[in-house]
Amino acid sequence: MTYVAQGAFAPVSRLDSAVADMIVDKPTLVLDIDRVEFQYHQLAQGLGEAHIHYAVKANPTREIIERLVNIGSHFDAASRAEIELCLSQGAAPEHISFGNTVKKPADIAFAHHAGVDIFAADAVEELEKIAENAPGAQVYIRVLVENSEADWPLSRKFGCRSDMVNDLMARAVELGLRPVGLSFHVGSQTRRADMWTGVLDAVAEIWKSAREAGFDLDLLNIGGGFPAFYGEQIDGPMTYAARVMELVRARFGKVARVMAEPGRGLVAESGAIIAEVLLVSKKSDSDTHRWVYLDIGRFSGLAETEGEAIRYQFVTARDGDEFGPCVMAGPSCDSADVLYEKRPVMLPTTLKSGDRIVIRNCGAYTSSYSSVGFNGFPPLDVVVL
Amino acid sequence: MTYVAQGAFAPVSRLDSAVADMIVDKPTLVLDIDRVEFQYHQLAQGLGEAHIHYAVKANPTREIIERLVNIGSHFDAASRAEIELCLSQGAAPEHISFGNTVKKPADIAFAHHAGVDIFAADAVEELEKIAENAPGAQVYIRVLVENSEADWPLSRKFGCRSDMVNDLMARAVELGLRPVGLSFHVGSQTRRADMWTGVLDAVAEIWKSAREAGFDLDLLNIGGGFPAFYGEQIDGPMTYAARVMELVRARFGKVARVMAEPGRGLVAESGAIIAEVLLVSKKSDSDTHRWVYLDIGRFSGLAETEGEAIRYQFVTARDGDEFGPCVMAGPSCDSADVLYEKRPVMLPTTLKSGDRIVIRNCGAYTSSYSSVGFNGFPPLDVVVL
Repeated sequence: MTYVAQGAFAPVSRLDSAVADMIVDKPTLVLDIDRVEFQYHQLAQGLGEAHIHYAVKANPTREIIERLVNIGSHFDAASRAEIELCLSQGAAPEHISFGNTVKKPADIAFAHHAGVDIFAADAVEELEKIAENAPGAQVYIRVLVENSEADWPLSRKFGCRSDMVNDLMARAVELGLRPVGLSFHVGSQTRRADMWTGVLDAVAEIWKSAREAGFDLDLLNIGGGFPAFYGEQIDGPMTYAARVMELVRARFGKVARVMAEPGRGLVAESGAIIAEVLLVSKKSDSDTHRWVYLDIGRFSGLAETEGEAIRYQFVTARDGDEFGPCVMAGPSCDSADVLYEKRPVMLPTTLKSGDRIVIRNCGAYTSSYSSVGFNGFPPLDVVVL
Repeated sequence: MTYVAQGAFAPVSRLDSAVADMIVDKPTLVLDIDRVEFQYHQLAQGLGEAHIHYAVKANPTREIIERLVNIGSHFDAASRAEIELCLSQGAAPEHISFGNTVKKPADIAFAHHAGVDIFAADAVEELEKIAENAPGAQVYIRVLVENSEADWPLSRKFGCRSDMVNDLMARAVELGLRPVGLSFHVGSQTRRADMWTGVLDAVAEIWKSAREAGFDLDLLNIGGGFPAFYGEQIDGPMTYAARVMELVRARFGKVARVMAEPGRGLVAESGAIIAEVLLVSKKSDSDTHRWVYLDIGRFSGLAETEGEAIRYQFVTARDGDEFGPCVMAGPSCDSADVLYEKRPVMLPTTLKSGDRIVIRNCGAYTSSYSSVGFNGFPPLDVVVL
């Protein structure tokens, strides 16, 4: 099943109607936790035997974690604070993996003492830190894949090249750790499941080589990449997840433990931001497009518009009027605080200062990215339904 | 006078020795307020008749504002919260200009009632908001200049083209406002005063045209652009400011009121960040450079490394050892959280996890840019000496 508009598929009316009724005086993210639960079940059904480890960084709102604990989700944590958050909401430590490949020794020790037993690594130096601070722990090696087709690809920051993997496995054993598997990431917002093919092919080669070298791998962490709807067609969550698992099984056969780490794909569509138009103007009488300035920008919640990578959808009360091209910018005095300029956004020509503008599917990578107060603007407010 | 290293010119030993002695467990910005005062006097002496309006957004730390109020600075505020901050520290409202060209009507009304009487605008729609919420106020028109030579240029976000200026002035008069002058910005971190020449030439033409059209302009706001030392040679603050004013006088003659809005140039060199190396590793055995991961990154204070625009200087205890090229990245699981990759950084080859690393001249555009908690990492801590 595919869907071209969120409303055609998911029960979003609760969020939409709550947003329509809400009065706010600053940019506000409204979250529908029931929508998160709905999406969780869709993804879980598609993923089959793979277990969901929610990527907490996508949205650490307490009520999301609480609900996900209650419905059986596991968690992928990027830091000590995220582990503490999950534990505080009742997550079992054995259901939390410490997935950041770059960790403070003290945070590894904290996790170990709390009962977290599985850690990511992509370097000998990181394995040494883990061995010292979490002796005997399970580790999976993050591999670098460079053929991503994602909208927000993951550069070379994480993972080691394939030629290092078996050396790291061997070193882990020497250090008394248990190298149990591999992880990778296809890149955030990979819109179609079939875009996973090239990456899975490459990882399967590495998996095979490690097993041939005698490492008894039983854990495959397929990471995130599950998309949200931002206007371009995507597969529905169940269909997408099922297709990914089909591609995985075809290449890896039966794997005892498969982990998936949806973040965006689990929570983005459960949130909408209520914002306000501050100014609509032109730079010159001869300009063909307008500049639309909002009270939210790159430093107060919309960080993922960097490079115009994530293109949000906007809803206004004037959407029945004629549309025209706009450059869109945030409220700060920083010139980098421009949302869309290279590819202008189509908005009603009647739009004006004071109008409300709703930004759809903003539940992921917004609130926690907000600055503490750049230019004196407050962080994105969060309201949970 | 020019200087190639901060220590050769300014009394920084207090900051350096405080940083050396300080024990921290998370990234911390240490600020020396006396150093801000020193820099203020240097700039003020060079600027002569021009008055400093500190760009609060560069660093809104309360103690900086308090000190600047006490030594006679005026202020450029980007938002209601920044105006409130200045007022709370004793600034007179008539010494505050509301310099954001994009303002909420309610914030204009707040400023007006508080006694702030001077506002920036670059569009008819903004003038209308000002006229309605701050009747009779002084306005200056921000003009768009596109020949910046700055390291962090200001794109097209702010200012109108020259062909609109006189129309905006006329409209301001119709609306009962007082169009008193022009503002512009050469771009942040304009390293040499002589780089102002092209922009000043262009603005002087606009100024002349407005006066010929009968507008009795008496205020020239030359904005910011005053540089900080990041490794490339810059003029000392007094020399730089004096040269800028020489260029201004040559083009504008005698102007009743000249405003300058240094932010970075006033506070950057008064701060240093204490950070920690989390991991030094390679992606492959054949890699020629290392990856150095810090506990601070683009989303926790070093936002200005976007596009590798601002290149900070690093100090470690191993600076006597051999140096080699490094890619540098932050601690989050976000692949965009890479500080320097296209132009690697030279760091000691002996650097390793757990080492302290001091980032110099970080007093501007760091703490307030921090995210509230992306990936669970806390905002940049600030300690005032």
